[in-house]
Amino acid sequence: MLLRKGESGTFDAQLENARRTAKRIAGLIERGYRVIITHGNGPQVGSILIQQEKGRDEVPAMPLDVCVAESQGEIGYMLQRALRAELIKRGINRPVATIVTQVRVDETDEAFKNPTKPIGPFYSKQEAGKLSRQTGSLFKEDAGRGYRRVVPSPRPKEIVEKDAISRMIKGGVIVIASGGGGIPVVKRRNMFWGVEAVIDKDLAAAVLAEDVKADMLIILTDIKAVFLNYRKGRGCEMELRKTTPEDAARYLKEGHFAPGSMGPKVQAAIDFALKGGKTIITSPKYLEDAMKGDAGTLIE
Amino acid sequence: MLLRKGESGTFDAQLENARRTAKRIAGLIERGYRVIITHGNGPQVGSILIQQEKGRDEVPAMPLDVCVAESQGEIGYMLQRALRAELIKRGINRPVATIVTQVRVDETDEAFKNPTKPIGPFYSKQEAGKLSRQTGSLFKEDAGRGYRRVVPSPRPKEIVEKDAISRMIKGGVIVIASGGGGIPVVKRRNMFWGVEAVIDKDLAAAVLAEDVKADMLIILTDIKAVFLNYRKGRGCEMELRKTTPEDAARYLKEGHFAPGSMGPKVQAAIDFALKGGKTIITSPKYLEDAMKGDAGTLIE
Repeated sequence: MLLRKGESGTFDAQLENARRTAKRIAGLIERGYRVIITHGNGPQVGSILIQQEKGRDEVPAMPLDVCVAESQGEIGYMLQRALRAELIKRGINRPVATIVTQVRVDETDEAFKNPTKPIGPFYSKQEAGKLSRQTGSLFKEDAGRGYRRVVPSPRPKEIVEKDAISRMIKGGVIVIASGGGGIPVVKRRNMFWGVEAVIDKDLAAAVLAEDVKADMLIILTDIKAVFLNYRKGRGCEMELRKTTPEDAARYLKEGHFAPGSMGPKVQAAIDFALKGGKTIITSPKYLEDAMKGDAGTLIE
Repeated sequence: MLLRKGESGTFDAQLENARRTAKRIAGLIERGYRVIITHGNGPQVGSILIQQEKGRDEVPAMPLDVCVAESQGEIGYMLQRALRAELIKRGINRPVATIVTQVRVDETDEAFKNPTKPIGPFYSKQEAGKLSRQTGSLFKEDAGRGYRRVVPSPRPKEIVEKDAISRMIKGGVIVIASGGGGIPVVKRRNMFWGVEAVIDKDLAAAVLAEDVKADMLIILTDIKAVFLNYRKGRGCEMELRKTTPEDAARYLKEGHFAPGSMGPKVQAAIDFALKGGKTIITSPKYLEDAMKGDAGTLIE
């Protein structure tokens, strides 16, 4: 995560966050782990979408899949620069590379019938109507705060560049991939086509982990572990140290995890566990302890 | 090249050009060549820069190095999608991947003392003055057409991700790298830092070819070969089929090749020849003939 809510989103602020995260990841690499890094892109692609609109009178606005590709370049650059610097500081000479990543989704995914994922800025009803006519995009009222573009969020099915990523890992490269959940593409007549959609980054990470046959998926977030009855008071809240995919699915169904927040992270862990992988959910600060089983949540 | 002068720059126009180029490159891959692809980004980074300005009141504008990284994501995505589709059509199942690429330049490069490379849109004198105060960028009057931002264009020294690229090539991956001449970075205290500059894509390609120990550098352009006395009339114009770096350097000095156009391409060929590599300069249409020595210009 390169930006937290309320942060300004300047380049310097993002790079500072990239440096902090790079320290934690470098610690894993130092201990011998072969690492693939993935990341979100919400604030960055939000900015790129605003820039597309503002520049529309002078230069052609790019479709959403291209904006995701741009954000992968942007964030990948910052992460690879920060991580490489941190590794060199520790005397580790390992190549780090960002790979532009497409993720295949199904055209028949139910999400395409009912776009629900809000992206980009808020508009007035009038502006939204005008943009909708100009671009064909769908806009919906968002919790009384105005109108926002909504796009489908289909389930990720396959990392298109999985072979390239596997070969890079085998070659000793530390890979940054599938940024922002990946560029959403569908397969038609044996070819890939970009679609107006966004893919959940955690679910895409689980597919990536499966596609490259990773042993472990680590999901870093703001809180140190998965909680039941989160924020329902001291006596009620319960930190999960270790759980099974079956139990996690039950907790998810019972509504313990917020949709769009802890929900997809737990779902990603369940998906990966059902393919035989284990997942740790924790915050960067507790990563080291979580690897020893002393913090975070392990789902397997 | 994904855009020619006067083309609209919409996504569809760019993708169509990417598909045409992909056909030629797929031909090389089919004949067994291991290929690294590089490309320019002038029109694309120009659009991104305009979008940064237009969106500045709402979201932080990113520095030039980040804009180059964004353009690498954008163009890389189009190229890898187009090339992969073309390969699958030919029954070739090879991974294609774009790698976000930094290129090291020297802080002591003379170019930093005298920025000369115009980038982005034209401004009035008043607008340029205001932007200059806001951003610290330098603006210069450009051939009576208005004011444009000028940045240094230092010589590329090293592809930062060369090890990752070499390992990918060894692993059978077709790599798209060093787009737009690469993201310009300098080394300070053993760490890389982004700089406000652009690197010539042809010179960067020569460094990439050297860094990965390529046998051949192919520079695809709009005209079928290098000419002496280009456009100086039928009897005067002379197509070069084969030349040495020494002769090419003499022709360059004599002013046969336009700066910013054929000049840097010939310079790139000279640079690479001095490291023992051979270069072909031709247009996509004549590529196949040029590989047999029947068209284009070979410099070695």
